[in-house]
Amino acid sequence: MNPLDPVFKPKSIAIVGASRDPKAIGHQCVINLLQSGYEGKIYPVNPKADEIEGLKCYHSILDIPDEVDLALIVVPAKYVPAVTEQCGQKGVKGLVIIASGFSEVGREDLEKEVVEIARKYGMRILGPNVVGIMSNPLKMNASFGPYLPYPGKATLISQSGALLIAMDARTWSDKVGISHMISIGNMADLNFGDLIEYFNEDEETAVISLYVEGVKNGRKFLEVCKKSKKPIIALKAGVSQRGAAAAASHTGSLAGSVKIYDAAFKQGHVVKAENLDALFDETMALALQPPMEGENLLIITNGGGVGVLATDAAEKYGIPLKDAPEDLKDLMRKHMPEFGSPKNPVDLTGMADRDWYEGSIRDALKHPWVHGVVVLYCETSFTDPQNIVEGIYKAIQDSGVNKPVTVSLVGGEKSVKAGEWLIEHGVPYYKSPSAAVRAMAALREYGRFKEEKIHEFKPYEVDKQKVSEIIEKVKADGRKALTEPEAKEVFAAYGLPVPKGKLAKSADEAVQIANEIGFPVVMKIVSPQIIHKSDAGGVKVNLNSEEDVRKAFEEIVSNAKKYDPDAHIHGVYVQEMAPWGTETIIGSINDMQFGPTVMFGLGGIFVEILKDVTFRIAPITAEEAKGMIQEIKGYKVLTGARGEKPKDVDAIADAMSRLSQLVWDFRDHIKEVDANPVIVYEKGLSVVDARIILK
Amino acid sequence: MNPLDPVFKPKSIAIVGASRDPKAIGHQCVINLLQSGYEGKIYPVNPKADEIEGLKCYHSILDIPDEVDLALIVVPAKYVPAVTEQCGQKGVKGLVIIASGFSEVGREDLEKEVVEIARKYGMRILGPNVVGIMSNPLKMNASFGPYLPYPGKATLISQSGALLIAMDARTWSDKVGISHMISIGNMADLNFGDLIEYFNEDEETAVISLYVEGVKNGRKFLEVCKKSKKPIIALKAGVSQRGAAAAASHTGSLAGSVKIYDAAFKQGHVVKAENLDALFDETMALALQPPMEGENLLIITNGGGVGVLATDAAEKYGIPLKDAPEDLKDLMRKHMPEFGSPKNPVDLTGMADRDWYEGSIRDALKHPWVHGVVVLYCETSFTDPQNIVEGIYKAIQDSGVNKPVTVSLVGGEKSVKAGEWLIEHGVPYYKSPSAAVRAMAALREYGRFKEEKIHEFKPYEVDKQKVSEIIEKVKADGRKALTEPEAKEVFAAYGLPVPKGKLAKSADEAVQIANEIGFPVVMKIVSPQIIHKSDAGGVKVNLNSEEDVRKAFEEIVSNAKKYDPDAHIHGVYVQEMAPWGTETIIGSINDMQFGPTVMFGLGGIFVEILKDVTFRIAPITAEEAKGMIQEIKGYKVLTGARGEKPKDVDAIADAMSRLSQLVWDFRDHIKEVDANPVIVYEKGLSVVDARIILK
Repeated sequence: MNPLDPVFKPKSIAIVGASRDPKAIGHQCVINLLQSGYEGKIYPVNPKADEIEGLKCYHSILDIPDEVDLALIVVPAKYVPAVTEQCGQKGVKGLVIIASGFSEVGREDLEKEVVEIARKYGMRILGPNVVGIMSNPLKMNASFGPYLPYPGKATLISQSGALLIAMDARTWSDKVGISHMISIGNMADLNFGDLIEYFNEDEETAVISLYVEGVKNGRKFLEVCKKSKKPIIALKAGVSQRGAAAAASHTGSLAGSVKIYDAAFKQGHVVKAENLDALFDETMALALQPPMEGENLLIITNGGGVGVLATDAAEKYGIPLKDAPEDLKDLMRKHMPEFGSPKNPVDLTGMADRDWYEGSIRDALKHPWVHGVVVLYCETSFTDPQNIVEGIYKAIQDSGVNKPVTVSLVGGEKSVKAGEWLIEHGVPYYKSPSAAVRAMAALREYGRFKEEKIHEFKPYEVDKQKVSEIIEKVKADGRKALTEPEAKEVFAAYGLPVPKGKLAKSADEAVQIANEIGFPVVMKIVSPQIIHKSDAGGVKVNLNSEEDVRKAFEEIVSNAKKYDPDAHIHGVYVQEMAPWGTETIIGSINDMQFGPTVMFGLGGIFVEILKDVTFRIAPITAEEAKGMIQEIKGYKVLTGARGEKPKDVDAIADAMSRLSQLVWDFRDHIKEVDANPVIVYEKGLSVVDARIILK
Repeated sequence: MNPLDPVFKPKSIAIVGASRDPKAIGHQCVINLLQSGYEGKIYPVNPKADEIEGLKCYHSILDIPDEVDLALIVVPAKYVPAVTEQCGQKGVKGLVIIASGFSEVGREDLEKEVVEIARKYGMRILGPNVVGIMSNPLKMNASFGPYLPYPGKATLISQSGALLIAMDARTWSDKVGISHMISIGNMADLNFGDLIEYFNEDEETAVISLYVEGVKNGRKFLEVCKKSKKPIIALKAGVSQRGAAAAASHTGSLAGSVKIYDAAFKQGHVVKAENLDALFDETMALALQPPMEGENLLIITNGGGVGVLATDAAEKYGIPLKDAPEDLKDLMRKHMPEFGSPKNPVDLTGMADRDWYEGSIRDALKHPWVHGVVVLYCETSFTDPQNIVEGIYKAIQDSGVNKPVTVSLVGGEKSVKAGEWLIEHGVPYYKSPSAAVRAMAALREYGRFKEEKIHEFKPYEVDKQKVSEIIEKVKADGRKALTEPEAKEVFAAYGLPVPKGKLAKSADEAVQIANEIGFPVVMKIVSPQIIHKSDAGGVKVNLNSEEDVRKAFEEIVSNAKKYDPDAHIHGVYVQEMAPWGTETIIGSINDMQFGPTVMFGLGGIFVEILKDVTFRIAPITAEEAKGMIQEIKGYKVLTGARGEKPKDVDAIADAMSRLSQLVWDFRDHIKEVDANPVIVYEKGLSVVDARIILK
């Protein structure tokens, strides 16, 4: 038995705060459990009532004679700790705390208190601040939502309660089949990761669908998503700056950086929905259809115009059409008049009737080249949409293959009715061609995720001890930032190529180091107080002689003293001057939810003006790093644009993977890393400047 | 009377090719006219019938005793010329050629023949290859589409017949009110420009809505759109490469460059719909609501989650939310519980009932800061959507202002019904928050267009004569491409700054020119046969002495002879070496539909890797050019990125405007212009290299 079964599949439920007032949530919950057809035991609890809606009412949860799996808690927030304590004493296993007034209004203290009590008794909590749990398989509406959703195979988890209730109603009008609908609230205990893990094992769930404002325990989220055997789709709200702020203000959740969520979704194989319509549309497709296991999409239409629109959409959503092979075209020609088009999109023409649809779809699905079919139909005066959809359904049955099909019927009420018939028969229907294509793109996205091999990070051999020592020393100094020589040492310990260099305490020493390294050299001030070295006149480049070096030392030190008379000057770093190459940036931010990340971008205008950067959650393999590099818009700069030779992408990937190990190993200490610029050559690279900030 | 009235508002209609066979289109057209309630005269024409559906049938159009305004032609293509001739003899004023089998299947000849006959008689043609015309004001279904669309104020013109019929049905299920629905077909005569011009004067039309694959006579299209007093919205199909090809294959229309259509829509103040759903959604908003006359959007919601989604959508669609002023927040606070949020989005909380909605919307609309309101409602168990929408409607009435409102009701059937009630009362309703925001963004887009002043191009004083002479000379030589010195002379004649330079025929001449210009100089081969000068070893830069120049001359000529022994060498161009600055590109393509255009982009990676370029149809004012410059992604490079001084954007705009005059003046001669690079400084610029290709 799964320890969360008492929460999501309870055999008995107590409603603590059950009410006789028909307007009260505590009444609604009792009614909902009764009306939904829940077959377990229901125990209303209210110190002042003896009976509610024909059920015996207990004055305290401790009075209930039998075992209680789950308690719905609908008392005001201030009473929740006491009620939780009683539930613990009673041996209740799970709590759904519907009550609000916790962290979402700044009462983190109260929330923490409740969690601690629950922990003491081993009780799990959903909430607080939730609508509740709806389960079609159990016919259980353990919520104050109005009714169970349209039945089906998707489990929908929402961080917004109001949206959950609204979506509940919309599942009926859109015919999106739902197994469970769960309001996740403040996630004081159970979070997205826990629920995904649980419903992954649930037989009644074919797809897990999320409305996310911000996750808690991002690492667990990522891990369970990665391991999921079922498709996961998420609508991330708060992707705009102001949207993130709005999300924070209404749930107290930190929406987090969009780029980092994008990374987590990619790494966790979570399909991203672009808006609420897409969440519904794609949830339906993922629940009803198999993944698209290849890139060859065929569009079959009776209208050239919608064919063009769908072709545009296919490119937009990342599944661009390709030319169909000749033998497939020959097959298609059998189902159209002479002036039809057997190309992709296949245009059966406005004369197409049921037979042509049925024949062309069946033959297309059977053809090995085809990985998925989007069927488009424009309502005509001489065809009956119902007749057409029956042909589509029969074609899928007769094809005997398991390839995805989505359908758009453009038309009026007759088309809508026929579309609903299709949905009831397991084929996703959409009003518009672009929605049908977008749903297919989600099936392809899931197909790609399934094809992607699991990246197992294998640690490099590194000098971890050395890094520990440097960090200890910096901390002992009371500093947060490593100096450049320290940062370079850390990088070198993890095998990242840094230019040769040494700290000089005097001009003589600088000259000696320069002679060891070889000219030309670069010299930079080293002082914990001076972060912006150039602004302080603390950097001199292209120094070609002993005299230059000596002069530079004096100038740098004098400039630094002028810039900040109180600065503690460690000396001047004398460094091999890296030859010209392509500027890139590798970095890391320690994210509040997901922990250490790795960032990559091209230097200069690409980062500063175009914000052309990409993230992953650390650690990552060199192969994953390569995927990141290929994903930036300016990637061609590295492959030999404007007549230049290609740059050493493998070396960048290796450096990124090593950096990812560094920030992962020292996740409790390192807050930020910025290797900028990293100069990349035809062979190899050099981390020319580096900054490491501790937590 | 408008000369197109007989086409779109005919008093009498003949159906040439009327049929007694109920399955024939020629029968359907008769039935449709009868059933739609058309009050004009209907004359079926069929040589073999005396009566169709109770109407007297004429054996020839010449037999009809009365005047005929419009003839629907449904005979096979090959008979259309003869029928057209007869219509002309009869004095028919307009033809709707429903028959297909013309340019869309490669029979441009037949189409041309028909147009010539019609011209002879002064008849206008809609089609061929059309569904027909539907008019709700006239209760006229002069088409083979099944019924008149849902009545309203939008005139919808579609280049796809099948889509038109399907959209006809969808207007009823989506409640998008239509005045006229017109199938425009092959546009052998009447094209988008003609129809927009006509319906701009039509009292029953509030918005003109287009499904466009490719326009004909782009200039006229642009001009009538610019002058339109009504909003125009267009869905452009074929925006992907393959989509464009698909469009070309099914209508024979050239879909044209997406970037040039984007330019034409922008200059013509045409709102762009991103897909079919958006076309419907935004047509409804533009028909029912006033434009949004400012940037301040307020969102009012009862659900935090949908508020966040709408906030994200507002940023995505270009109307990002701003902080509401304090007095507006104070007003909002009156309509919410203490834990509601008066910020933007305004969160009335899940407790919101009709009164709070009504009060907050009324007060918001009355507040001068607010330019538009998007209302969101999540269906709850204790509110009735119908009650809420009546509150919304009352608030709009009571506000007494004319500001746009769009609404999203997220929920089930009750919400859908309430939404339909809203639409019937003139308030656009959408299922999803993002659709409501997108519709508001269309209203804002139209508002911005209305605020934009009309740019009147005033020609510069230029030496047109000189350019004519150069072009004549090049043509006389049998060349298509101007040499670099010729191109520079052309540029100079139109006042574009080019570096000083002269053609040298010998090394001595080269030295003399270099001395006149001043060192350093650049030298380039001049030969009509050598286009890629650098590849031919024909360019030497940074020449600092007489000796360098002499040596360069010999080398360049020798390299050129090696590169192409047959090349005709005009000499070597000796040119002032432009100092280093920011590389930009200005160019022009003579588009088949829209004629000469102007292009702008930043040089190097921006153009080559990021394709970061923008177009306008020429000519353009310097102010319009400035708008183009600001629109590219890398614009910040010009305003002083990375510590550099801002560049002379005014000089670029001036050069672009002058170039636009050049390509417009010589539109019959110039095919392409490419000024690349144009080096821009803090003050001024220099066209360092230029290429002009003739038609």
